Amino acid sequence: MKLFGYFRSSAAYRVRIALNLKRIEVEHVPVHLLRGEQRREEFLEKNPQGLVPALELDDGTVLTQSLAIIEFLETLQPEPRLIPADSVLAAKVRAVALTVACEIHPLNVVRVLDYLKEELHQGEEEVGAWIRHWILNGGLDSIEQTIAPAPFCFGEKPTLADVCLIPQLFNARRYATPLDHLPKILAVEAACAELPAFRAADPFQQKDAE
Amino acid sequence: MKLFGYFRSSAAYRVRIALNLKRIEVEHVPVHLLRGEQRREEFLEKNPQGLVPALELDDGTVLTQSLAIIEFLETLQPEPRLIPADSVLAAKVRAVALTVACEIHPLNVVRVLDYLKEELHQGEEEVGAWIRHWILNGGLDSIEQTIAPAPFCFGEKPTLADVCLIPQLFNARRYATPLDHLPKILAVEAACAELPAFRAADPFQQKDAE
Repeated sequence: MKLFGYFRSSAAYRVRIALNLKRIEVEHVPVHLLRGEQRREEFLEKNPQGLVPALELDDGTVLTQSLAIIEFLETLQPEPRLIPADSVLAAKVRAVALTVACEIHPLNVVRVLDYLKEELHQGEEEVGAWIRHWILNGGLDSIEQTIAPAPFCFGEKPTLADVCLIPQLFNARRYATPLDHLPKILAVEAACAELPAFRAADPFQQKDAE
Repeated sequence: MKLFGYFRSSAAYRVRIALNLKRIEVEHVPVHLLRGEQRREEFLEKNPQGLVPALELDDGTVLTQSLAIIEFLETLQPEPRLIPADSVLAAKVRAVALTVACEIHPLNVVRVLDYLKEELHQGEEEVGAWIRHWILNGGLDSIEQTIAPAPFCFGEKPTLADVCLIPQLFNARRYATPLDHLPKILAVEAACAELPAFRAADPFQQKDAE
């Protein structure tokens, strides 16, 4: 399988962690978002949305959307489980993942920040404030209230919640978001940093990092 | 079970459709978003995120995030399936659902529109253009390229893809988004409109509609 990604893409970073935890090997194909490679015809044929990540299966089928890809990987290689067997716990894990994926991340992606700058004429300061606002309000601030690290978000093993949270923390730090008031989240981050699967997925460990 | 929702909330509308398709009865508890009822202490105790929908189970456990709630309902009452058994098809269904939930909807929710108006001083015209831009670009325009209605998004029965698409179309029409160039999506909409489960979930069929 081939994973089309970009070292700094938070959504691609999620899929890299999941692949590493499940020890699934893929070929990593970088798509340079800032150079607009996602809008080249060659890539649009694979994913008309022009987004990374995209997972190309051996038969040429292309799967998109990081959470849909991770649910697919969960079926392909069930162990270790990233979504608990208990359906209530699974809902709580997915809710944290979706809080990152639906409440925080969509507001802070490159195309949205470009729109703020180019169409709405916002300056660096306003864009930075926008980014930090959505990372915290209704985002990390609310996740802090729903987890009880032990040491991962939901127990002794990492789940989809941790897989989504860590890339979002990378983004939060990149934009100097204050995190000191989030001790539970910082404890989860420290626990994940001990695991090779998370460390190897770090943006700066990727071959296209610059 | 109790579903905390709001007639116009697109995410609550998704859960209503799923409940109706699966014939699961719940008590509907309206939370008036425009009057700020989601920020009252009474509701924040149930969902610290202050968002609808939230599903309260009979033991008092509260589940949040519409897609996590629907995945929970899928386990609780597997028939009719909203996520196909085939893992590749399941990934395609989830990708359409996530395109709505992660690429379109988060940019157009009330709190984001309020931020544009109040913090970034954007007028009605700019906010309307923002809404329509994100509904189409990378949103409905790309979904149009990935579905082949027969007559639903992925075959003869509605799936999670249709469950997410229909509420987004309601929003699109509310903001006068041009849809004529999306014949496949309009065909899906027509097919869903034939089903009582979709019709009964319509915002204007809810007791809190105004």
